[in-house]
Amino acid sequence: MSEPALLESRDTRGVVTLTMNRAASFNALSEEMIAALQSALDRLAGDEGARAVVLAGNGKAFCAGHNLKEMIAQPELAYYQKLFAQCSRMMLAIQQLPVPVIARVHGIATAAGCQLVAQCDLAVASTEARFAVSGVNYGLFCATPSVPLLRNVPAKQAMEMLVTGEFISAGQACERGLVNHAVAPDAVDAEIARLLESILAKPRLALAMGKELFYRQREMGIAAAYQLAAQTMAANMMDSCALEGVTAFTEKRKPNWSQ
Amino acid sequence: MSEPALLESRDTRGVVTLTMNRAASFNALSEEMIAALQSALDRLAGDEGARAVVLAGNGKAFCAGHNLKEMIAQPELAYYQKLFAQCSRMMLAIQQLPVPVIARVHGIATAAGCQLVAQCDLAVASTEARFAVSGVNYGLFCATPSVPLLRNVPAKQAMEMLVTGEFISAGQACERGLVNHAVAPDAVDAEIARLLESILAKPRLALAMGKELFYRQREMGIAAAYQLAAQTMAANMMDSCALEGVTAFTEKRKPNWSQ
Amino acid sequence: MSEPALLESRDTRGVVTLTMNRAASFNALSEEMIAALQSALDRLAGDEGARAVVLAGNGKAFCAGHNLKEMIAQPELAYYQKLFAQCSRMMLAIQQLPVPVIARVHGIATAAGCQLVAQCDLAVASTEARFAVSGVNYGLFCATPSVPLLRNVPAKQAMEMLVTGEFISAGQACERGLVNHAVAPDAVDAEIARLLESILAKPRLALAMGKELFYRQREMGIAAAYQLAAQTMAANMMDSCALEGVTAFTEKRKPNWSQ
Repeated sequence: MSEPALLESRDTRGVVTLTMNRAASFNALSEEMIAALQSALDRLAGDEGARAVVLAGNGKAFCAGHNLKEMIAQPELAYYQKLFAQCSRMMLAIQQLPVPVIARVHGIATAAGCQLVAQCDLAVASTEARFAVSGVNYGLFCATPSVPLLRNVPAKQAMEMLVTGEFISAGQACERGLVNHAVAPDAVDAEIARLLESILAKPRLALAMGKELFYRQREMGIAAAYQLAAQTMAANMMDSCALEGVTAFTEKRKPNWSQ
Repeated sequence: MSEPALLESRDTRGVVTLTMNRAASFNALSEEMIAALQSALDRLAGDEGARAVVLAGNGKAFCAGHNLKEMIAQPELAYYQKLFAQCSRMMLAIQQLPVPVIARVHGIATAAGCQLVAQCDLAVASTEARFAVSGVNYGLFCATPSVPLLRNVPAKQAMEMLVTGEFISAGQACERGLVNHAVAPDAVDAEIARLLESILAKPRLALAMGKELFYRQREMGIAAAYQLAAQTMAANMMDSCALEGVTAFTEKRKPNWSQ
Repeated sequence: MSEPALLESRDTRGVVTLTMNRAASFNALSEEMIAALQSALDRLAGDEGARAVVLAGNGKAFCAGHNLKEMIAQPELAYYQKLFAQCSRMMLAIQQLPVPVIARVHGIATAAGCQLVAQCDLAVASTEARFAVSGVNYGLFCATPSVPLLRNVPAKQAMEMLVTGEFISAGQACERGLVNHAVAPDAVDAEIARLLESILAKPRLALAMGKELFYRQREMGIAAAYQLAAQTMAANMMDSCALEGVTAFTEKRKPNWSQ
């Protein structure tokens, strides 16, 4: 196969689009795909020119989860341990990335594909998309997908999805907190463009400090969370963009962040 | 009273129905009822033939919480400490059970009765059911019910229920995440049957590993949660049901799990 | 400026209304305002006559967050660290107060003003109110506001608010769990009166023990949470109000808590 598993494009503003490019296998998270995503995320983590990432898929599906043919070919515990550890590391890299990551979910997202959506910072879905943590249908409980799912969706709704493996609609995904917006298929890109425009109008550093703080404080008791958040906010305030932004706000003018 | 406090029935598929059988006291969680539930849960924990549990109530109410007459008869701190510890142990046994537990809520669920609903993995309510954590109405804040309530329902909505003691409808309980479905009274059993059919089509081990992981990972930071989930999923994959299930999936046939 | 930053009134029932009184600055959380709130909360923490607190604002806005003019005048890390630590301490004092605190949100609540709403135990909003964590618009990510926001609102919705800085309506705030009720402007006081009437009908001690337990158990694993909750409930039950309340309930009469 000569086509790369993952396509990468970048616009002049620093919006990087990563497009899973295995339409024939519904963009399954093969070893190749996990490695390609990890590699791209590692590179972007140190790329100061990147401002936001859109994660998309080519073909009919967004992502159908692990590549089952590949998995069944190596029925060894050590192999599965390594595979799921690698996939989990890649998922965590989305959270650790200093820029916002938006899932563009145009079609089905199942098992680890649904996990990808849950793990992204934001998600926009087409009303044609559907979501399931369906591993249990073939006897494999979606354990790793349950990690971000339960951090997005109320507990009983998450449990029902996990034990039944059934699909929910994009509308239900939106009501339950799995995606931010569910819009008509031809409105998905406009909705993402709206989010990007808003994100790009903010200083990169503020978003980076904020995203890191957001996930770190979530794991803390509230007193420790406040302590870390207060320190983060003080450090953010000393950045020249924030000083200029606050000054501009008090002078009722637009901040001059372009120099 | 010769009738048992808790009725137990089982169908040929391994669905166990536990029916609280004290209609006259609205199935209050008396010492007798707590002991009967604990005993049944302990037995079912080691029962490989059990596949799912439905928790139901006879009479007009689902469960009206603790037995206040019994409580007031022994106004001693040590007695109350023991009583609430025993009740909490029983509630945790629902979470620890290796099979899914579905609350069948046909009537009111108040105080520790509402807690029972919150503590079950899944819940189906009749539109005639109503829910309250009403202990505060008689001066006893629903402290133990707040534990699973806050793990089901958004914080401010949980707090309002706890400080006002007011009822919410089944529809509100569904919107807030306290129950999975709110349906007409004569549709409750069909809705539960639908959930059971889906659950029974999955391998028992996958559900058991998954349920345990679900609640354990919820208490962890995300990195540790992923580590445990990846190990769980690898172990699950080595089970013969998963190997057969994944193989069948790749061969586009139904898994042969019946041998 | 001779008008106090914070007005305090109390009715005969022990309902204390704290009204931020800097309409011209949209009730910004200046050092003066933070100190006034801290002072009031400290005093109320030991005031057995207080039964509930309503937090309100004079003028067009509820609260527009930090006082940016004041902040920009002292661009020093140590100053910002101290400022955000003081503000966080005040926010935590709301949680630590033994009586319920209800936000009365009649107008916009932005940045630390939105945080105030999130930090209160309950909140009632006018449909004219709007909510944003808008610091990112001037380059300062709302780090401390994200602490209570994420403990009220689903993760992806919280993240979208934080990275876009955009407003949500009162209706959206209600759906997402940020406020309990969104009602017409002229119905806000009636809705708060309804909550207060319900709260005032409960014994003060039960609410105090319950509120403390609610937030403490949230930070624990479920087994430890149940242990603390069971102890709390046993101690609550030994209070004379609970003993009388439970007795009255079993005798189908109103509790006599007035002596």
